[in-house]
Amino acid sequence: MSPREDSPRWSALGKRLQEPVIAHLMADALARENVLSLGAGFTDNAVLPADMVGEAHDRLRQRPGFPTWLQYGTNIGRSRLRELLCEHLARFPGERPDSFDPARMILTNGSQQALYLAMQVLCDPGDEVWVEAPSYFVFLELLQGLGIQARSLPQTPEGRLDSGVFRQELARAQEENRLPKAIYFMGTYANPSSRCVPAEDKIALGTALQELAPNVFVLEDAAYREMYFVQPWPAPSILSLDAFDGLACLYLGTLTKPFSTGLKTGYATTNFPPLLRKMAQAKAHQDFGSAHFNQCLLEEVLEAGDFARYLVTIRPHYERKMAVLDEALHENGLAESGWRWQRPEGGLLLWAEGPDGLDTSMTSAFCAAALETGVLYVPGDLCFAEGEPKNAVRLSTGALDDVGLREAARRFCAVAAGVPAGA
Amino acid sequence: MSPREDSPRWSALGKRLQEPVIAHLMADALARENVLSLGAGFTDNAVLPADMVGEAHDRLRQRPGFPTWLQYGTNIGRSRLRELLCEHLARFPGERPDSFDPARMILTNGSQQALYLAMQVLCDPGDEVWVEAPSYFVFLELLQGLGIQARSLPQTPEGRLDSGVFRQELARAQEENRLPKAIYFMGTYANPSSRCVPAEDKIALGTALQELAPNVFVLEDAAYREMYFVQPWPAPSILSLDAFDGLACLYLGTLTKPFSTGLKTGYATTNFPPLLRKMAQAKAHQDFGSAHFNQCLLEEVLEAGDFARYLVTIRPHYERKMAVLDEALHENGLAESGWRWQRPEGGLLLWAEGPDGLDTSMTSAFCAAALETGVLYVPGDLCFAEGEPKNAVRLSTGALDDVGLREAARRFCAVAAGVPAGA
Repeated sequence: MSPREDSPRWSALGKRLQEPVIAHLMADALARENVLSLGAGFTDNAVLPADMVGEAHDRLRQRPGFPTWLQYGTNIGRSRLRELLCEHLARFPGERPDSFDPARMILTNGSQQALYLAMQVLCDPGDEVWVEAPSYFVFLELLQGLGIQARSLPQTPEGRLDSGVFRQELARAQEENRLPKAIYFMGTYANPSSRCVPAEDKIALGTALQELAPNVFVLEDAAYREMYFVQPWPAPSILSLDAFDGLACLYLGTLTKPFSTGLKTGYATTNFPPLLRKMAQAKAHQDFGSAHFNQCLLEEVLEAGDFARYLVTIRPHYERKMAVLDEALHENGLAESGWRWQRPEGGLLLWAEGPDGLDTSMTSAFCAAALETGVLYVPGDLCFAEGEPKNAVRLSTGALDDVGLREAARRFCAVAAGVPAGA
Repeated sequence: MSPREDSPRWSALGKRLQEPVIAHLMADALARENVLSLGAGFTDNAVLPADMVGEAHDRLRQRPGFPTWLQYGTNIGRSRLRELLCEHLARFPGERPDSFDPARMILTNGSQQALYLAMQVLCDPGDEVWVEAPSYFVFLELLQGLGIQARSLPQTPEGRLDSGVFRQELARAQEENRLPKAIYFMGTYANPSSRCVPAEDKIALGTALQELAPNVFVLEDAAYREMYFVQPWPAPSILSLDAFDGLACLYLGTLTKPFSTGLKTGYATTNFPPLLRKMAQAKAHQDFGSAHFNQCLLEEVLEAGDFARYLVTIRPHYERKMAVLDEALHENGLAESGWRWQRPEGGLLLWAEGPDGLDTSMTSAFCAAALETGVLYVPGDLCFAEGEPKNAVRLSTGALDDVGLREAARRFCAVAAGVPAGA
């Protein structure tokens, strides 16, 4: 008599939803002892800012008056924190001082929620969004859940925008009345490729849209922008490039990755206030405001200059970890097994491409061998709108210490040496 | 050339979204000095648990090892906190020990997000959800945003379920193939009526559904359950009543209202695991897990017994505040102006009904006079699926102190005395 598992009562969205593929992989990994994870997108527990967060809380507690940090905040988020974030963003190279305005910013449950809100208010099932190849796999899953079609942007073999083909595809989509609702990319240390987009590629993108499809929204996700190792990436955000004037742009960032994943506070800012209003209206229904306490703590952290101080300490830390992983892959002969990769200049992620024809997907012999050998990675096919190529992996430096990274790399390379392409 | 405000590029959901009505009211209020708010659903700043939260953080900081409370948690939320919440819920009168199972619970961004997730996975635009009259107005707005039709349950003049008419309506809806996807109600100290649902009404509801429409989901929202003044409401939750066996039930609760609104941590638990899975899959796309830090703090608070201790201190506090408001309404002659209300036995909200024909809605003369006089309330029409009757108001004891409550009540009664019914 009770509703069945495959109840016809689910909504269309409910029917589309699936268990995240990565959940199966995590469950498989947890079922085995001693699996080392190069898969998890965690930051490093060893450098989480416990003192800064603790001291921020202490300062709040020492304030006279009521403990309003434990009260509701607003739907859009604390104005002083938005101000501080705008000041922070304006300090990146090439930014226009007026590109970031707290009145055009919303605070969200990580930048993930901002992505969700933007897609909800822009896209109906069947609509297209064009993404990088590879792209952020949780974003691709989000699109699938909302029934939105992802499609890869045309790129050169080096992973840069092929602006000629892009213009042709835009023109054809315009003719066929199937323009994408939005274009989504990560400008800096992208998940999963750790690539950065040069200013000239952004300009080519914006210019083509201005000319051919000015109603297409552009989303730049900057979740890893602060996490450069030595120098910030020189290209300004789309909000500061003339090529995007007149286009509706959304810039997404977060304090989650570069400061504390446990505080889950992201933000989105735009040059097109109606988009912010729609997103805020959807957020009012989802939670009518992210946790005010977390905002108060982070406001204290930024106000005290601790965020900037913290970044100075973690940059060499993550640079060193990336070097450890990169060197261990070299030392254990991954290149000799036909793999190619570049050491990133920021972030937590190393993208490596195996020989043509290799299959690293969840159900592959390669993946089974990796689990058997005790190492976990993110299969690269999950990161492509089209589900292929299948010969790449995303490796993360976040979760393991140096010893763990070396051992995980050794295991990964053993798998790569033992599983021939085409297996 | 840029996208216009009324861009045809919005999704159907984006087009449906509107500025929350209450936002206009708040803006009007903020534009005037000295407006006293009986409208805001805040808890009382004076009793927020700053020490308990601070000490919980101190205990975390004293733990050996890495500060994992600042790391990502899981999508579904910390298992120990879910265990503690289940133990807490099982202590309410009449609950079966096996009704609450941490494996069938998800932690969310307030219970609001749980409501949103449930509606997303169950309802398509055009579907119906049946609600109390009056019902929680943010839930009604959420339904509107998702394109879901709200409809009032048949009730007696005392606000109890009219189970005879309910059975007739269910049978008719079944015949006409337009059964609601779900029924939503607040079992204890409901927002806005502060009514509690007797066990016999729940049983009548469940029995009718079992017989006539066993595929209709039932949502019981218990956001205020802990906030009784003297005695807990004796009726068990729907998860512990035989009348709901075989039905798919969702029970929603929160630590937001009864502990700290700033920590924004709610939960939902079910007897129907596929519903939990679907909701978790949608949540994985929205934020892949609520802030782990907040969960760690609240787990400490519950583990230490501080949540129970806190509730003991706030119950007489909110009882006293409710008495202050109730007495001030009496002393200032509201009954003589033709208004009716009952002093609630828990919660923060007092629901008062004006004379027949009175209009208290946003655009009414009454509302304008209230703002002019310096008092804010929630217009009752917002709380009805059908937008009427228009003669009630929701008054909250949360935000003001005793002096403020008395003065706000005096102002409200002056408005009620001065604005004739039909004005």
